[in-house]
Amino acid sequence: MALIVQKYGGTSVGSIERIEKVAEKIMATRQAGNDVVVVVSAMSGETNRLIGLAKSISPRPPAREMDVLMATGEQVSIALLAIALEKRGCPARSYTGFQVRILTDNAYSKARILDIDAEIIRNDLAKGRVVVVAGFQGIDAEGNITTLGRGGSDTTAVALAAALKADECQIFTDVDGVYTTDPRIVPKARRLSRITFEEMLELASLGSKVLQIRAVEFAGKYKVPLRVLSSFEEGEGTLITFEEEGMEEPLISGIAFNRDEAKITVLGVPDRPGIAASILGPVSDANIEVDMIVQNVSTEGLTDFTFTVQSNDYEQALEITKNVAAELGAREVIGDTQIGKISLVGVGMRSHAGVATRMFRALAEEGINIEMISTSEIKISVVIDEKYLELAVRALHTAFGLDDDSAPAKVEGQENIA
Amino acid sequence: MALIVQKYGGTSVGSIERIEKVAEKIMATRQAGNDVVVVVSAMSGETNRLIGLAKSISPRPPAREMDVLMATGEQVSIALLAIALEKRGCPARSYTGFQVRILTDNAYSKARILDIDAEIIRNDLAKGRVVVVAGFQGIDAEGNITTLGRGGSDTTAVALAAALKADECQIFTDVDGVYTTDPRIVPKARRLSRITFEEMLELASLGSKVLQIRAVEFAGKYKVPLRVLSSFEEGEGTLITFEEEGMEEPLISGIAFNRDEAKITVLGVPDRPGIAASILGPVSDANIEVDMIVQNVSTEGLTDFTFTVQSNDYEQALEITKNVAAELGAREVIGDTQIGKISLVGVGMRSHAGVATRMFRALAEEGINIEMISTSEIKISVVIDEKYLELAVRALHTAFGLDDDSAPAKVEGQENIA
Repeated sequence: MALIVQKYGGTSVGSIERIEKVAEKIMATRQAGNDVVVVVSAMSGETNRLIGLAKSISPRPPAREMDVLMATGEQVSIALLAIALEKRGCPARSYTGFQVRILTDNAYSKARILDIDAEIIRNDLAKGRVVVVAGFQGIDAEGNITTLGRGGSDTTAVALAAALKADECQIFTDVDGVYTTDPRIVPKARRLSRITFEEMLELASLGSKVLQIRAVEFAGKYKVPLRVLSSFEEGEGTLITFEEEGMEEPLISGIAFNRDEAKITVLGVPDRPGIAASILGPVSDANIEVDMIVQNVSTEGLTDFTFTVQSNDYEQALEITKNVAAELGAREVIGDTQIGKISLVGVGMRSHAGVATRMFRALAEEGINIEMISTSEIKISVVIDEKYLELAVRALHTAFGLDDDSAPAKVEGQENIA
Repeated sequence: MALIVQKYGGTSVGSIERIEKVAEKIMATRQAGNDVVVVVSAMSGETNRLIGLAKSISPRPPAREMDVLMATGEQVSIALLAIALEKRGCPARSYTGFQVRILTDNAYSKARILDIDAEIIRNDLAKGRVVVVAGFQGIDAEGNITTLGRGGSDTTAVALAAALKADECQIFTDVDGVYTTDPRIVPKARRLSRITFEEMLELASLGSKVLQIRAVEFAGKYKVPLRVLSSFEEGEGTLITFEEEGMEEPLISGIAFNRDEAKITVLGVPDRPGIAASILGPVSDANIEVDMIVQNVSTEGLTDFTFTVQSNDYEQALEITKNVAAELGAREVIGDTQIGKISLVGVGMRSHAGVATRMFRALAEEGINIEMISTSEIKISVVIDEKYLELAVRALHTAFGLDDDSAPAKVEGQENIA
């Protein structure tokens, strides 16, 4: 008998009919001989309704009170799901974040889980009950209600799985797994039956909406086997695992991409120690996250320094950089919002020096110029002109043998990447 | 500086506009130099929406899960009200039942408050904050969410006032106080500026919807001065007090009435010890509440025994009584659903034997026959034919000098009685 933690997102519990279907899925998992702990999000639409109420009172409601308000969304879901389970003769108990003592820090609206008291849940499981826990919420040390921020229910599920030493944490969502790339761009994208945590982290951080990066990090830290499955279709989904299955390891697991970045280049800046910190310090002081950073070798004591930021931070970052560049005596600052970033991810590339070459050649064959390059142990990212983004993703998908020639075009559901 | 606990019901917080108005009222109380603790109900309509969701899954949802679901209604209200207060520059903190440890027994959907931890609230008040507490909800000793049942928010407010030793507990509602009788029946009904707890208890138990009887009992037990006011109009409302202002005490404070009872009479039952228990035992075993009980002196070893029950329990109670009567060898059982009960309430009648006489004479003058009489120290109740009910109430209102001849007819808002 295994202990399974299942998480169902807002779309999966978005109506009474869907809640009933989720109850059926849970019953099936139980009847297969497993103990089940379920984490649910607020019904889709509910969070927006609550935000609407608050915003109609105040454009900037206090974060503490917003968390009190938001936490009701999941509380409704857990009660309804427990009712649906009990109706089917399945003993069930719902719990809010405070009831299972999901202790967080007190960063309202983006709190981090510090501890979970698994005792109550274990007692219920021992009594043959399904335990239904509200995702996304907790309490701080002083008993204030907190929420975990976007994707928080995934994190709740993984944290519970870690605290309970569950055999598997299953994330049910509106896609049936992790894909080699976005099927809307590449109809021949394949679902991966397994992927390593490192790869998933790279894919998640590059914009995948399948799983929140915090949940993946958490799962990696506590070695929780994670599986992504569809709430609406049968299937094995994608298992995110620690084991690197050496033999059959493909070179590349997935191709992620992102249009939501902009790049800023400081040209002709005097190349002396600390120059990178001088430029990026004021940017990060303004709470702007910097993604790629590239600095090339200098010529004649001058260098060019380029970095990328989220598009909606672009204007502010550009202004800050211009001020800094003037102080540093740089020649010029230029920016570009029409860029796309593509990343190849795969643990297999560690031992294959040829990945970069094959990537650059495939792009060259399509006449696509590379504007920036950045590499890590299991990732190569390039920045290109945004208008070539889709073409490039398709070319690379084919070049690295990822195409599923047997599969019909699969377009629905996939939100973004991977 | 006084400490005031204010309670606003569902209608009072039924929309964003009304929540803003409640915030204004709280600000005014604060600016008058008071500390304020506020208890709120769910926005009107929300409770029904939640019940609808649950019922669409299961006709009989488990009580524990219903309480988890219902408790979200007040949680939304407290957050929105705190947001509205903060917007006005008034420091505020919202708390759910569990956060201020409103400890109850575990009778889901009708739990009783056992204890409140006033510490957290006192700390916030000391910091100059308005404290907003969710009414109607608590937790049991095991941390399960409970609700207090109908009118529970009134009880929460009174319990908080008792725990905090507040100077006054103000119940804001959609009527502007307690009336001598229902203004819809008697346009000349007067608002009472004060009334004793005993009187209020008699009026509440006779069907008043102004205040729930449990809240009044609680206030009486802990000597919490209670005031009923309108959320929508200015005014002093009605103060419910311990002091009996001897000198000016009117004979009668109010006239309550009730059409929702039915009477059952066992005729010709052998008069021996234990007969009342024999008849009423099986009725109360079926969880049917009995209101008036009248047994007259016996003649020739036989007596007649009459009691009243709520109309919707009538059929069941009649069947039970018929079975019992047959066993006891009673002659006949008759029932009547077309009855009305009228009660005169007033601490002043304690020392005035003539109240009953004046009452009976007033009814006789209208040609109204009295079917049952029952008295307590501060109450006289009679049962009459239902069709004379309104006439009787008006006649008695005039006979006991309760008419407000100066006031215009006031019809709106008053739900039922007193």
